Amino acid sequence: MITAKGYAAQSPVTDLGPWNFERREVGPHDVQFDILFCGVCHSDLHQIRNEWFPGIFPMVPGHEIVGRVVKVGSHVTKFKVGDLAGTGCLVDSCHTCDNCNHGLEQYCQNGAVLTYNSVDKYGDGSPTYGGYSNTIVVKEDFVLHISDKLPLAATAPLLCAGITTYSPLRHWKVGKGHKLAVLGLGGLGHMAVKFGVAFGAEVTVLSTSPSKAAAAAKLGAHHFVVTSDADQVAAVKGSFDFILDTVSAEHDFGLYLSLLKTDGTHICVGVPSSPNKIPPFAIIDGRKSVAGSSIGGLPETQEMLDFCAEHNIVSDIELIDMKDIHAAYERMERGDVRYRFVIDMATL
Amino acid sequence: MITAKGYAAQSPVTDLGPWNFERREVGPHDVQFDILFCGVCHSDLHQIRNEWFPGIFPMVPGHEIVGRVVKVGSHVTKFKVGDLAGTGCLVDSCHTCDNCNHGLEQYCQNGAVLTYNSVDKYGDGSPTYGGYSNTIVVKEDFVLHISDKLPLAATAPLLCAGITTYSPLRHWKVGKGHKLAVLGLGGLGHMAVKFGVAFGAEVTVLSTSPSKAAAAAKLGAHHFVVTSDADQVAAVKGSFDFILDTVSAEHDFGLYLSLLKTDGTHICVGVPSSPNKIPPFAIIDGRKSVAGSSIGGLPETQEMLDFCAEHNIVSDIELIDMKDIHAAYERMERGDVRYRFVIDMATL
Repeated sequence: MITAKGYAAQSPVTDLGPWNFERREVGPHDVQFDILFCGVCHSDLHQIRNEWFPGIFPMVPGHEIVGRVVKVGSHVTKFKVGDLAGTGCLVDSCHTCDNCNHGLEQYCQNGAVLTYNSVDKYGDGSPTYGGYSNTIVVKEDFVLHISDKLPLAATAPLLCAGITTYSPLRHWKVGKGHKLAVLGLGGLGHMAVKFGVAFGAEVTVLSTSPSKAAAAAKLGAHHFVVTSDADQVAAVKGSFDFILDTVSAEHDFGLYLSLLKTDGTHICVGVPSSPNKIPPFAIIDGRKSVAGSSIGGLPETQEMLDFCAEHNIVSDIELIDMKDIHAAYERMERGDVRYRFVIDMATL
Repeated sequence: MITAKGYAAQSPVTDLGPWNFERREVGPHDVQFDILFCGVCHSDLHQIRNEWFPGIFPMVPGHEIVGRVVKVGSHVTKFKVGDLAGTGCLVDSCHTCDNCNHGLEQYCQNGAVLTYNSVDKYGDGSPTYGGYSNTIVVKEDFVLHISDKLPLAATAPLLCAGITTYSPLRHWKVGKGHKLAVLGLGGLGHMAVKFGVAFGAEVTVLSTSPSKAAAAAKLGAHHFVVTSDADQVAAVKGSFDFILDTVSAEHDFGLYLSLLKTDGTHICVGVPSSPNKIPPFAIIDGRKSVAGSSIGGLPETQEMLDFCAEHNIVSDIELIDMKDIHAAYERMERGDVRYRFVIDMATL
């Protein structure tokens, strides 16, 4: 076994703290890479607090992981020692179902294995531990190539925030001629703006905070609407083809659906802790849809990383030390981060 | 003015009773037809009780109206005295917005005028009165041709229950190779089964009542699933491309969404009185959609009527006398009707 060190929550009511644990030896199809940077996702907080479902503890969070390969298994062909490597939310899936066969491992019909807070059910059955740690062993098929053209720390959030917004925009073919509204300007939202602009859509940021207008413009958004301002809202009623909704708190679907055109689609990628309340007439009138989307499959995640390298797209980040994770969580909860915290794993 | 007689609710807490009222004179673009049959829609009950929004009283319900033309305006070209004619949920719209220009009058961006419980805002501003009456005057563009090949009384429900289910099945191109689940086997649901089968889909009825199995089979459904039976539900998890949801009471979206395939669509045409509660993961996991659809535009309603005439599709009905409307409402609330009450207007 490989001795690893990390930061773990020992229970849903315990703060994160240093913890030593074991990772499996590098098997024939495995890649081991030392973690250089790991992004901090809102879902880390949801999960260590059991806000979505009962978790597996001790829990080492982190699924926006980049680093450098230190060892490869005998059958590994796509990576060699010294390569940059990344892993997102998934570390395994069944490889046999229809979705896996179509590169949609995130929707594996037999259940994908998540990077943490999951069980390696197609392997040795042990719990999985995430990226708030110094090294990781992952099946080659779930390791992504990371370009050396981009600043590495700022690349980490692409593995979750990036693919979570890239994938639905590609699936629904959002681009030229479309009006896209982005709801919520956090880790996910700021990536949605960058991708929406890169794909040629006319992008509007919807926000409760007038103070974010300048930041939205800096990210490339074409318009900014303060949703607490009735006149601004009235001016965009029925105007959007798509809303990409990154909010993970309860919010007013009736209001946002009224901003969609006929046949418009409201795409949810945020996960509130309680059910979304959809007024029946809000979708019936105008034949609208409320859809969901979860991260992306492995081929699409690589495509997204390559697209980012080509178009010079990364996340806007604040680099933090491992010991400052609690302060970072507090600021993240207040929405006080532009736009993603990334842990410098050299500080572990 | 034309003196009309009908059945009206004088207030949201008053039973329906006989009422005489006036309709406008037949204008140059109007068709007057004497009403022979009018279907009884669950929305009639919702509206006379103010369950959706505050109504306009006295209220004459009814928007599944068929009859015979008795007078046409000087500019009317598509109808002549003696023709069969029908009117559904709409009697006017703005004729200028993008949706009206595309035959989607039901989504008129300036607001369509409903057949009852609405205001003739593009005309003289008077309230509209529906089909529980002896005669009606409607703009030619909102009058449909009704085939004499079909039993007339059973054609009436096509004007709402028919088009409400036909339109989404056509919009989402449901047909051969698709597995369609129909949720709720009432006035809408039984039409959804007939259309789904006619379009070539493999149709499953989802119901809480095992007793409806034989009836579902008789309508042409290929399968029947009792949703209170955990084994039957488990057997169809992740199996449907589409669910057509006709239920207008609160129901468990988490359960039904789990029965959809990846990228499946749950289409709501029923209108519960409270918001639909959508668990976030139920749509995010599997990239599913919850969509709405409202009746259909005029061109599509005519297309549906022509399709029905060609394929010999009508509603299964129970013909009632006008005076028995209250007993019919009580039975409809209990789901005790196969599948639509139609009022014989000769009994008014």
